[in-house]
Amino acid sequence: MKYQKLLEQTYQEVQQIPQSGTVASYIPELAKVSSEHFAAHLCTVKGGSYSVGSYATKFSIQSIAKVFTISLAFEMLGDEVWQRVGVEPSGDPFNSLVQLEYENGIPRNPFINAGALVVADILLQLLDDPWEEFLFFIRKLAGNDRIAYNEKVVLSESQHGFKNRALVNLMKSFSNIRNDLDKVLDFYFHVCSIEMSCEELAKTFLIYARHGKCLLSDERVLAVRTCKRINAIMQTCGFYDEAGEFSFRVGLPGKSGVGGGIAACHPHKYSIAVWSPPLNPKGNSFKGMKFLELFTSKSELSIF
Amino acid sequence: MKYQKLLEQTYQEVQQIPQSGTVASYIPELAKVSSEHFAAHLCTVKGGSYSVGSYATKFSIQSIAKVFTISLAFEMLGDEVWQRVGVEPSGDPFNSLVQLEYENGIPRNPFINAGALVVADILLQLLDDPWEEFLFFIRKLAGNDRIAYNEKVVLSESQHGFKNRALVNLMKSFSNIRNDLDKVLDFYFHVCSIEMSCEELAKTFLIYARHGKCLLSDERVLAVRTCKRINAIMQTCGFYDEAGEFSFRVGLPGKSGVGGGIAACHPHKYSIAVWSPPLNPKGNSFKGMKFLELFTSKSELSIF
Amino acid sequence: MKYQKLLEQTYQEVQQIPQSGTVASYIPELAKVSSEHFAAHLCTVKGGSYSVGSYATKFSIQSIAKVFTISLAFEMLGDEVWQRVGVEPSGDPFNSLVQLEYENGIPRNPFINAGALVVADILLQLLDDPWEEFLFFIRKLAGNDRIAYNEKVVLSESQHGFKNRALVNLMKSFSNIRNDLDKVLDFYFHVCSIEMSCEELAKTFLIYARHGKCLLSDERVLAVRTCKRINAIMQTCGFYDEAGEFSFRVGLPGKSGVGGGIAACHPHKYSIAVWSPPLNPKGNSFKGMKFLELFTSKSELSIF
Amino acid sequence: MKYQKLLEQTYQEVQQIPQSGTVASYIPELAKVSSEHFAAHLCTVKGGSYSVGSYATKFSIQSIAKVFTISLAFEMLGDEVWQRVGVEPSGDPFNSLVQLEYENGIPRNPFINAGALVVADILLQLLDDPWEEFLFFIRKLAGNDRIAYNEKVVLSESQHGFKNRALVNLMKSFSNIRNDLDKVLDFYFHVCSIEMSCEELAKTFLIYARHGKCLLSDERVLAVRTCKRINAIMQTCGFYDEAGEFSFRVGLPGKSGVGGGIAACHPHKYSIAVWSPPLNPKGNSFKGMKFLELFTSKSELSIF
Repeated sequence: MKYQKLLEQTYQEVQQIPQSGTVASYIPELAKVSSEHFAAHLCTVKGGSYSVGSYATKFSIQSIAKVFTISLAFEMLGDEVWQRVGVEPSGDPFNSLVQLEYENGIPRNPFINAGALVVADILLQLLDDPWEEFLFFIRKLAGNDRIAYNEKVVLSESQHGFKNRALVNLMKSFSNIRNDLDKVLDFYFHVCSIEMSCEELAKTFLIYARHGKCLLSDERVLAVRTCKRINAIMQTCGFYDEAGEFSFRVGLPGKSGVGGGIAACHPHKYSIAVWSPPLNPKGNSFKGMKFLELFTSKSELSIF
Repeated sequence: MKYQKLLEQTYQEVQQIPQSGTVASYIPELAKVSSEHFAAHLCTVKGGSYSVGSYATKFSIQSIAKVFTISLAFEMLGDEVWQRVGVEPSGDPFNSLVQLEYENGIPRNPFINAGALVVADILLQLLDDPWEEFLFFIRKLAGNDRIAYNEKVVLSESQHGFKNRALVNLMKSFSNIRNDLDKVLDFYFHVCSIEMSCEELAKTFLIYARHGKCLLSDERVLAVRTCKRINAIMQTCGFYDEAGEFSFRVGLPGKSGVGGGIAACHPHKYSIAVWSPPLNPKGNSFKGMKFLELFTSKSELSIF
Repeated sequence: MKYQKLLEQTYQEVQQIPQSGTVASYIPELAKVSSEHFAAHLCTVKGGSYSVGSYATKFSIQSIAKVFTISLAFEMLGDEVWQRVGVEPSGDPFNSLVQLEYENGIPRNPFINAGALVVADILLQLLDDPWEEFLFFIRKLAGNDRIAYNEKVVLSESQHGFKNRALVNLMKSFSNIRNDLDKVLDFYFHVCSIEMSCEELAKTFLIYARHGKCLLSDERVLAVRTCKRINAIMQTCGFYDEAGEFSFRVGLPGKSGVGGGIAACHPHKYSIAVWSPPLNPKGNSFKGMKFLELFTSKSELSIF
Repeated sequence: MKYQKLLEQTYQEVQQIPQSGTVASYIPELAKVSSEHFAAHLCTVKGGSYSVGSYATKFSIQSIAKVFTISLAFEMLGDEVWQRVGVEPSGDPFNSLVQLEYENGIPRNPFINAGALVVADILLQLLDDPWEEFLFFIRKLAGNDRIAYNEKVVLSESQHGFKNRALVNLMKSFSNIRNDLDKVLDFYFHVCSIEMSCEELAKTFLIYARHGKCLLSDERVLAVRTCKRINAIMQTCGFYDEAGEFSFRVGLPGKSGVGGGIAACHPHKYSIAVWSPPLNPKGNSFKGMKFLELFTSKSELSIF
């Protein structure tokens, strides 16, 4: 019951904070979402499950899905994957071309757009039917076969994705993209279009807190090593150029998306997902970050 | 005994790796140190103490001391300190003036040179006799009154510190330095000149694993909050533009210095210090990083 | 006869200089050209015409054609054109995305690739049949209806133009491209594929030395104002990040292309074109620059 | 009489333009100057002399003096001088440290602050009594022994010169400063403190239009080569990051200063100086640039 109470208290406090974020509007499908939604869900490694708000409502997880693509690529390819994408924080806004140009088309990490596009390209090389197989993989992580792409979001992204198109072309000019550019973009847009509820997202992230073992089946779906590495990268790179701030205030490995979701975990303890669509100027959920900051302070459950 | 054995096994493995680093030579006093030294010392939160190599030999801890200055400044000034220095990784080499110029003289974090100079300036404002009081503070953290400045290193630094002089002047032009520039530099050079052995350094870092409480006296010398925040900043910013790599390979909050030392901790578990003077191209101890990587892999004792 | 002698003397001297450039190889069609070619042709405003080397051999004028696109766009649109492209030197390599990103998609000048792509986009808006009408325009400037596109070069460019594709997509994301991206690129590649001999190129550039009036017909084909402005931009931006060097050594407004051509003029006096395919590391004809430097020193015919 | 009439007409037109610049305030001595002053003076190579406004009032020529230091250094040292300072436009604001750091302490050109500091350092190496000898040199160029330093401006600059101090320290760290830093700065501040009236400045610049020969004595005081080279550098680098704009609008080699002065010349024709203290956002005299733009348009006396 401790967790439920903490979630509720935190929820009440966050409701008092005046909203100062704005819903992402760069693609029409995201702009339609009501800014009023709020949800949080927490899963403990031992099976506890707690929530507040509209925890069962699906939303576009967007960049959070990048955690799953790099997990799959790293599982399949091992350390070879780091020859084409780094593990350093970028220190620059999330779709910056600057570093890419100075650093010969090798993106800083798999969570900036450029890095996730390279990872998408890697998966296109590794998988026979990437669209189907990735969905199968994510359903396995989630223990849930109702996870799906949202084709409307895919269409919306692909009509407005000029910066992403600039990124793949630039990386292609450095030979760091191997597949047809339109295929890479289409797969990437599909990945980002995945929808989950906070409950589903927290359950999926539990894998990272449990170092790769499913709660129900006790089946290993990711290597221990994969989970440790991905957690480490989330810690330093999960929040664009606000990664330091998140580490400082919240103190958990995590990842945010422009849909307003944030997923995080405390290795060996719990996973948590929050959702509130309005974003702060750095592109992370304004109330989501506040919630997690208050929650880890209250609970003293940061990793530090 | 588990820890002692792990240290020894790791030590043997690291000795097999061909040295590829080079000892820092930008100041003559550091260039004199033999590249052959190696030491590691580990302290558990319950009082265990384990070592290999020349763990009792003193060396220049250099930038590791920046952990202590920001700790003191944060204890005294609270969150106000973050108005003058950030908590984000820099993504650039450690004494880069570029970001400083783009970001109006506010350094990215307290561990790059510019940030540590601002913290030195803050301490000059807060303390009556900064040189003496800081030494007293660090001796208290260390539980050891034999910690001292090395005046030869101070002199050597001050004769070659043109880049640091450029940094304080640039920040002064943005009004982010308040004291006489020569005083700021002199205090900063003293801070970096502090010498410790691996044993002393690990014991001092134990404070951060124990969230502020001394092992022997059980006295609180730092607030819980301070330790959590400093650990978080070490995690994202402790290794210049290799912070992501260290987080990825080692998975502990830590800080390195150009003297070849690295100190790290696992909150609630242990602290560890290693020393090997030759540095990799990013300015971090080549064998020190290898040692910690192997050690946390073997022991499965990273925070992730 | 003075000019002929000067050309010949300079030619002999330049032949003594060991070649240190390399022929552009980023597209196969350019890589095929022999590095042995050399030609120079000079036209005076009064009708004199002098040459050395293979002055009648056609080559790909590449970026030199950007002088003609901005001339046409400026004639048609007037100062409005500068709302979408600047007139400042870039200080960076010729296809850098960095500045474009910092400066909201407005390229520094019409001679870097990004700027020329915007100018191509502007012409697509202004002309009914841009491909035909631009060819007509350039034939009028040249007084010569044998000027044509080289479709093999177009094809070669379009198969390797990933950086240019990155540029148009990036500018589209800032709304500084209005037409279909493939059309913009195709038109741009056609423009760059134009072929001329040194004789033809020098005759075309005579327009800029004669402030817009044709030598033979005395017909005005460009406004005085256009020629002055374009000459000014060539002076500060005509040689990528070597514009200062060219101004310093040669002292004429001019423009180079990766095909190894350079065209320049001395307002009220003469125009000159040189061609030697091997490029220096900055992308300008190695021997072409040497030739012009020696020629203007000998002749004391720089504008300064 | 043609020139006098043109100056007067232009003067009247410029008076109609609403002032939108602001007087430089970074040092108190400059901030004191009335924003109402306006003056212009033109000298022809044949001895004509024409003026409007307060052409005999002295003002701080500031960066315009950098033309004279590089002229002297180049006369004495020849092309060796370009090993320590470049001739390329910077594309960045005038005291940017960014490029300096990326380019190993070699400033882009002698007209940005970093470049002028290196030139000051070179002169300290070449001259026995730089303060006196430089004054003697400038008096010889000017044909006028009433040119002097303003010690109040020197004092004011030295009390606020933190960015310049940052620059010399940074270049010292790259070994591109050889003398005592305080001496370099003091000499530099003296150079910038020189005062001239528009009449004196135009007469001094006549040397550059006459390729080194004094009007009255017909004595050669600068080599032809020096004048050509300096004119070329003024053309591409004389107006900070507005050099292209000045070239485009005015079309003369010239140099501006934060005191509100601009000096320019048309080789073989005339020199001109204007003065109006309020600066545009790029740091160049707002009305001074307008005046020169209108003047060269009306007179058709640009070099292009």
